[in-house]
Amino acid sequence: MSIKTVILQFICPDKPGLVSDLASWIASKNGNIRHADHHTDADAKLFLSRIEWDLDGFLLDKNEITSEVNLLEQRLNGKAVLSFSDDFPNVAIFVSKQSHCLVDLLWRVKAGELCMNVPLVISNHSDLEEICSNFSIPFKLIQVNKNNKADSESKILDLLHEYNIDLGVLAKYMQILSSSFLEQFPNLINIHHSFLPAFKGAQPYHQAWDRGVKLIGATAHYVTKDLDAGPIIEQTISNVSHRDEVSDLIRKGRDLERVALARALRLHLKRQVIVYRGRTAVFT
Amino acid sequence: MSIKTVILQFICPDKPGLVSDLASWIASKNGNIRHADHHTDADAKLFLSRIEWDLDGFLLDKNEITSEVNLLEQRLNGKAVLSFSDDFPNVAIFVSKQSHCLVDLLWRVKAGELCMNVPLVISNHSDLEEICSNFSIPFKLIQVNKNNKADSESKILDLLHEYNIDLGVLAKYMQILSSSFLEQFPNLINIHHSFLPAFKGAQPYHQAWDRGVKLIGATAHYVTKDLDAGPIIEQTISNVSHRDEVSDLIRKGRDLERVALARALRLHLKRQVIVYRGRTAVFT
Amino acid sequence: MSIKTVILQFICPDKPGLVSDLASWIASKNGNIRHADHHTDADAKLFLSRIEWDLDGFLLDKNEITSEVNLLEQRLNGKAVLSFSDDFPNVAIFVSKQSHCLVDLLWRVKAGELCMNVPLVISNHSDLEEICSNFSIPFKLIQVNKNNKADSESKILDLLHEYNIDLGVLAKYMQILSSSFLEQFPNLINIHHSFLPAFKGAQPYHQAWDRGVKLIGATAHYVTKDLDAGPIIEQTISNVSHRDEVSDLIRKGRDLERVALARALRLHLKRQVIVYRGRTAVFT
Amino acid sequence: MSIKTVILQFICPDKPGLVSDLASWIASKNGNIRHADHHTDADAKLFLSRIEWDLDGFLLDKNEITSEVNLLEQRLNGKAVLSFSDDFPNVAIFVSKQSHCLVDLLWRVKAGELCMNVPLVISNHSDLEEICSNFSIPFKLIQVNKNNKADSESKILDLLHEYNIDLGVLAKYMQILSSSFLEQFPNLINIHHSFLPAFKGAQPYHQAWDRGVKLIGATAHYVTKDLDAGPIIEQTISNVSHRDEVSDLIRKGRDLERVALARALRLHLKRQVIVYRGRTAVFT
Repeated sequence: MSIKTVILQFICPDKPGLVSDLASWIASKNGNIRHADHHTDADAKLFLSRIEWDLDGFLLDKNEITSEVNLLEQRLNGKAVLSFSDDFPNVAIFVSKQSHCLVDLLWRVKAGELCMNVPLVISNHSDLEEICSNFSIPFKLIQVNKNNKADSESKILDLLHEYNIDLGVLAKYMQILSSSFLEQFPNLINIHHSFLPAFKGAQPYHQAWDRGVKLIGATAHYVTKDLDAGPIIEQTISNVSHRDEVSDLIRKGRDLERVALARALRLHLKRQVIVYRGRTAVFT
Repeated sequence: MSIKTVILQFICPDKPGLVSDLASWIASKNGNIRHADHHTDADAKLFLSRIEWDLDGFLLDKNEITSEVNLLEQRLNGKAVLSFSDDFPNVAIFVSKQSHCLVDLLWRVKAGELCMNVPLVISNHSDLEEICSNFSIPFKLIQVNKNNKADSESKILDLLHEYNIDLGVLAKYMQILSSSFLEQFPNLINIHHSFLPAFKGAQPYHQAWDRGVKLIGATAHYVTKDLDAGPIIEQTISNVSHRDEVSDLIRKGRDLERVALARALRLHLKRQVIVYRGRTAVFT
Repeated sequence: MSIKTVILQFICPDKPGLVSDLASWIASKNGNIRHADHHTDADAKLFLSRIEWDLDGFLLDKNEITSEVNLLEQRLNGKAVLSFSDDFPNVAIFVSKQSHCLVDLLWRVKAGELCMNVPLVISNHSDLEEICSNFSIPFKLIQVNKNNKADSESKILDLLHEYNIDLGVLAKYMQILSSSFLEQFPNLINIHHSFLPAFKGAQPYHQAWDRGVKLIGATAHYVTKDLDAGPIIEQTISNVSHRDEVSDLIRKGRDLERVALARALRLHLKRQVIVYRGRTAVFT
Repeated sequence: MSIKTVILQFICPDKPGLVSDLASWIASKNGNIRHADHHTDADAKLFLSRIEWDLDGFLLDKNEITSEVNLLEQRLNGKAVLSFSDDFPNVAIFVSKQSHCLVDLLWRVKAGELCMNVPLVISNHSDLEEICSNFSIPFKLIQVNKNNKADSESKILDLLHEYNIDLGVLAKYMQILSSSFLEQFPNLINIHHSFLPAFKGAQPYHQAWDRGVKLIGATAHYVTKDLDAGPIIEQTISNVSHRDEVSDLIRKGRDLERVALARALRLHLKRQVIVYRGRTAVFT
């Protein structure tokens, strides 16, 4: 895990020679490719690629790589996301009263499963302050009510800016962020407590119970202005039976939510997710 | 599997002593209980029970059992479904052009997995006639178009009556049966090609692809007048990725549909399913 | 969940009338049965039953119930385990250096998912002391090496006695307890990091990688003198691919281990598990 | 699916520039890559690659491609497997008395799920002759007993030669092929009715029942001289409970076997499987 790598995600219009083009450039600079995965969306005539190679021994430094990737984008009319495995993004975790996802994520960071820094936790309730304290992570209480929503979102944006946050994770935040907020800070992953698109909106476990489904799910997705309609990264499911009451669905759901969110976040952090056409390609 | 049993499904208002009441009656007639499973729906204050005991050695014959169960219903203000494991129901399979569920069901009947007779297959297209012929099962072609729907449903009802059919299985029938039909023949199980309630209606695999889900499903359910809203018996799921095109979802879905339908049908035939409150209790 | 119940697990030689016998006794004392599940092992001619009824309104108090259940055992030549849902057992968690199961279990206890007290954590290393401190749980360091095994086990037994421990949970304890220890304290649940009986013994993830399996698993089981051969309570699995290195299997395995152990422990605590013939019946 | 493609599987010692090397060659001949997937086994210092590109528009014909790939092997000290999507291999299915896998495979071939020809079915019993007849596939009865094993294997080898068979599929053949046979015809896929390496050898479902596992499995693998130890292609699992008798495990296992074998065979036919180090890399 300590090997430093360069990770290039690339999308461009499909044509012959693209794999060769990218790989030849890397080879010409002495790059040793560890993973390379390509996908052609035949319907949309798009080429998607994720290539990861060793930074050590590569003839370009990070700045030079950035410059050359810009040229590549122009030449191939594409869009690149360039990352370096040793640059850990700053991630703010948003919570409310429920602790299961927060404890899980902080434990995983500590265990080295998630390559990210957590400079702060933002919450609209104070319940989880002690957990953050145990993990020595700053806890910021930004209370939200129907009268102060714009103001509280403004405070949150200030914090995200102050702490240089790259990504927000809504770990059972239970608040809907405004379109205005999302325009200013669009990098957010959410965990929804249903198998989307079933049971959108409020109280999905109650909805699931009423419908009498035999499986319940959880969905981790990028946040967009359309509620619960953002690109899906990961979904998990669990069996339920007539013996399960709503409280059992909620309990089982906690396990689904923890796992789906952690997996989605890990995939995102390993830069294995490319968003396109309102969907994700997940290179595993 | 050759042991003959009596199976009693019973629903009534909950109160203390019900398990004892049912079990004592069976014991008093020398019944040896093989399976007994009870469920209390605390919210609805309902008692649900499924008890299966040996017919051999029981002091009552089938007619006497039926009479006494009627008395039981009256005394406990309940509703019973009484069955005998050696009475195989007559099941009509409805198909259209797709063969996967039909072949699977007929193979399972032959292999002894499904305790039912199949006196006929009903179809609106002739494509699957040869398969039925291979299994020596009568195939009835009842063509359906927008002008003859009432007439064709009438012909089907005649066939169901003529062949003394207890249950219909919609094994990719692809036609919506009218409310009038369902009033006259309500005992139907359908396989829907999505993880209900997601992707109701037409072309669920196209819908699923568009939404970019990471899991697809199939749902076997009893048919009601509300399309795709009947009580769910069984759901199955499979992973999908961005590499799967709609045709791959359809292919993977066939496996899900076969398994979900076969499992649901087996549960129904073993009288393990009780429908109540628009849901099912499945005693496994 | 706050309703107080009596839970009776009962095994005896099978014969007609047993369900009636048990249920009639409960009904005669005004017991309202919430769950009743029975299983007949036809091969072994054994009757297994789990019945749960309301303590409130029942005409006998706990002592009287205990006395009458003893009479029941004698009369039916059976073996009963009687429990009361408001009696939380005292559970000692055994750990070593790995924290994932410990954090998970302590979080679940706090969240109310596991009805047990944790009076102490026992470890052969000091690494996890801080976690216990965060949860305000006494941490007892009992170092083990090849020269002091008998002595350390003796110290552990003293602790189990002192703290009135009902059950031990080996949450990645990584030590093999001696036969002598197990004779004195046989109530132990272990989490094994493989899909038993595959990959018994040491380094199962290395074994799994070498064999090139496509699924890995974890197994929660009761501890017996035969290593990794005790009655299985719960098994979980996860997909793996050629891209997963041993370290990935270990990481994925941690999630499997947490879930399998937590589920098994919950089943045990809800008295849903009956051990017989070296196997378990799990009444869900 | 009707697009003709070239599929190159390639293994060689790892070094920088390999992706570029392969992709540049394809690009230089005007090849449009549809799928390209590479894996580096860091531990073994091996590079594995699967590249699929359009045959139409490619500047080389099949013979020329074959020649150039030979040169590639020499230059990179590698081993290639070259295939063309429109060359359907000839596959012989080996069966005994159980029909579930045979019916499933023949149905899938007919449905277009499996790109292969089935010139004949070989069996040591006559039970399944009628099924083959329904699908218009020649059925060859080669009886095997303890006295004629060498002779019967010799007859089978003659048939494989006569029908120009590329691959054999042991679809519940229930006979162990000799080392001598495997030396002469090593291309075989088998379905084993357990979650290998658990329950090797005979009667795995009986073994599984005795052990009281909570999940059973099936394993599709390439055949090697070590019984049940060949490279695993696919594994499937299903839940079981104490209520399942051995006959239920066998029934549930049939579904697992059908699916695992069909998936493995499809992966093999799509040339998505590379065997190395006694394991498989499955490029999905």
